[in-house]
Amino acid sequence: MRLSRYFLPTMKDTPAEAQIVSHRLMLRAGMVRQASAGIYSWLPMGFRVLQKIEQIVREEQDRMGGQEMLMPTIQSADLWRQSGRYDAYGPEMLRITDRHEREMLYGPTNEELITNIFQAEARSYRDLPKQLYHIQWKFRDEVRPRFGVMRGREFLMKDAYSFDLNYDGAKESYNKYFVCYLRTFARLGLKAIPMEADTGPIGGNLSHEFIILADTGESAVWCHKDFEDADAANLTVNYDDSKAVQSVVDHFTSLYARTDEKHDQAMFESQVPADKRIERRGIEVGHIFYFGTKYSDPFGAVVAAPDGGEVPVHMGSYGIGVSRLVGAIIEASHDDAGIIWPECVAPYKVGLVNLRVNDDTCVVACDQAYAKLQDAGVEVLYDDRDVRPGAKFADMDLIGLPWQLVIGPRGLEKGVVELKSRATGEKQEMSLESALAKLSA
Amino acid sequence: MRLSRYFLPTMKDTPAEAQIVSHRLMLRAGMVRQASAGIYSWLPMGFRVLQKIEQIVREEQDRMGGQEMLMPTIQSADLWRQSGRYDAYGPEMLRITDRHEREMLYGPTNEELITNIFQAEARSYRDLPKQLYHIQWKFRDEVRPRFGVMRGREFLMKDAYSFDLNYDGAKESYNKYFVCYLRTFARLGLKAIPMEADTGPIGGNLSHEFIILADTGESAVWCHKDFEDADAANLTVNYDDSKAVQSVVDHFTSLYARTDEKHDQAMFESQVPADKRIERRGIEVGHIFYFGTKYSDPFGAVVAAPDGGEVPVHMGSYGIGVSRLVGAIIEASHDDAGIIWPECVAPYKVGLVNLRVNDDTCVVACDQAYAKLQDAGVEVLYDDRDVRPGAKFADMDLIGLPWQLVIGPRGLEKGVVELKSRATGEKQEMSLESALAKLSA
Repeated sequence: MRLSRYFLPTMKDTPAEAQIVSHRLMLRAGMVRQASAGIYSWLPMGFRVLQKIEQIVREEQDRMGGQEMLMPTIQSADLWRQSGRYDAYGPEMLRITDRHEREMLYGPTNEELITNIFQAEARSYRDLPKQLYHIQWKFRDEVRPRFGVMRGREFLMKDAYSFDLNYDGAKESYNKYFVCYLRTFARLGLKAIPMEADTGPIGGNLSHEFIILADTGESAVWCHKDFEDADAANLTVNYDDSKAVQSVVDHFTSLYARTDEKHDQAMFESQVPADKRIERRGIEVGHIFYFGTKYSDPFGAVVAAPDGGEVPVHMGSYGIGVSRLVGAIIEASHDDAGIIWPECVAPYKVGLVNLRVNDDTCVVACDQAYAKLQDAGVEVLYDDRDVRPGAKFADMDLIGLPWQLVIGPRGLEKGVVELKSRATGEKQEMSLESALAKLSA
Repeated sequence: MRLSRYFLPTMKDTPAEAQIVSHRLMLRAGMVRQASAGIYSWLPMGFRVLQKIEQIVREEQDRMGGQEMLMPTIQSADLWRQSGRYDAYGPEMLRITDRHEREMLYGPTNEELITNIFQAEARSYRDLPKQLYHIQWKFRDEVRPRFGVMRGREFLMKDAYSFDLNYDGAKESYNKYFVCYLRTFARLGLKAIPMEADTGPIGGNLSHEFIILADTGESAVWCHKDFEDADAANLTVNYDDSKAVQSVVDHFTSLYARTDEKHDQAMFESQVPADKRIERRGIEVGHIFYFGTKYSDPFGAVVAAPDGGEVPVHMGSYGIGVSRLVGAIIEASHDDAGIIWPECVAPYKVGLVNLRVNDDTCVVACDQAYAKLQDAGVEVLYDDRDVRPGAKFADMDLIGLPWQLVIGPRGLEKGVVELKSRATGEKQEMSLESALAKLSA
């Protein structure tokens, strides 16, 4: 993409309304614009990042055996009355009345609807287990939306639902999601720590929030320091091997890690040596939860059991905040100059900077580099604008593409271009051919 | 995907509520389920088709120079007051009041919001032209939603917006979308005829609806029979060559084609010989429209002109009904037994049918075929269920995958399998190797 044609409105000044760094940088880098309080439009570059995150989440769901579907945003109030949550949900639910005076709502989550769909079709234990998910916009009418996409009202979420014959089956499903989430967040370049979370009236211990440590997080968290070194990036496991899956879960739940909902200071101090205690704030990016027959009971989601008779299915739900992750990744990866994208979610891999757009030799070299990178399938943003080099460098650092390929007349005379790594700041002079080979590798 | 694990609830009986064939077949083939009146959940197989259509629409927008972004579903009423449409829109607009008593709405379209975004950032004629689009769920509170996804309330639409310095520029943008739409619908296997449509108070002739001829269509249409032979499937054009683009537009607008909004019987009879006159019904799948400064005026979307001074930008909007297209394609391509998917949007290319799941030789052959097709990157749905062959054949015809690869013990004894084309019904016996080679080609 040529920057001269791209809709990328960057800002030099820090927007007054933004309190945290990811919000400031997303506005300044031209990724989003607020449409109403807590509701954002994603401009082309922001949308690219959102799509890449969504795709990684999708791939990991599919790998685990998830089947993607899509439920609508607008739901019927009657469905929520059936579960008893219509009255219980409170003012965060956006309630709507349609032209026929029917009560509707903008879905904040989908347990009711998926259970309703499932109960109409499932017949037998042979239809189990099932893992269904969708990636859809949700709405929660937060009283004070803030922190940009981190705590917006309209937000994109992946929510998955598991259906099993009994508790043991449901636990196997739960474990799969646990591992799937470790893999997903690791692929996104994030260190997300699974922390024991509240199970409410369901009881048991099958509820974990996946938390990224960050000072701007909404909840206080306590965990063992060894989580910082735990690496899920190369975690490979056969999801059909339930023992192998369980052992990964056991490994990642063996150390203390709890949010304020479940924190027990005495237990923390007894289980974790003083020099290993981390007490910080965290951002929730995922939540997995087993809730048994809480919804299958009221919706009559039953199947024929192997030994005859009908039993309600055991369910769990599994969320990932997709739009929130854009902010969370920036919170975890930036510096004073701007965003530092991990390559896997970067909107483009390379920023190609033409230092002198009125120099024919320089333009030819840049055009060729642009064409060659595109031919090699490398995503490249080409700054061909007629602006000062200083402004180009500042914008490149701000938008945070992993590599900057800088081409100017002086370097070309010497037969070199400059390749800069955004993450390390390291600059290398080399021939254009070497730079292209390195970027295309 | 193994059918034994897939969430694909097919139905033998015709659902009473479905009046048109696409609605019936989408329900019977387990593609969608109604959540509320005019609001649908897309089950896994339906969602695959929706995604494939969306991706073709996206690729053609990108090829033309469109930049994808994403605007939210919920908009502020104030924005629509600024254009005067809040009161004008009527009861089809889903109006919402949030917890702070602010008036909001579920966007039925996005002219206001995109103009608002654009005006805040655009400065100069150098920022033009721009083509921005998004693919997002919309809501229109139809008084009588019907025909399944063809006239639903919550529907997926691609809407694009062009920004130009003046009428001539806007006309060039309009022409690009005209050609882009011809290409898009041709790639979807549809014959969509561009018909002159009403421009309302804007005037001029820059408004076309793209219409598929079908008895179940919502509007009466009149056109020249030669459109039936016009082929846009191999249409290649350089979008930067405005003369070449104009000549394609001229070619496709040289023959009479109008909806009831613009039909002139005398002109029709004088321009079209009696044996070339088509008078039928049609389904609108796209609409392109130039509206000048209708929105840039009230929103102050102005840029500095080359000769100094400020001028309002000239805009157009360009819609494609993505979810509606799923139904439209089925209306255009089915038979008594079920859907006949064009390969480009088929949920899977091949249905692999195991005729005897308790025969070891048969299972081994099928498992191998399944693995080999997957390795070759062929999308395959493997019917490994323990049900009668007749039920398997009926389901395969119903869901309409382009190819059926049928493997049974009797054939294997002779060293053959059967390959059936869903579109032609032609069956061929051949070795498994030949069948796999043919499907992987």
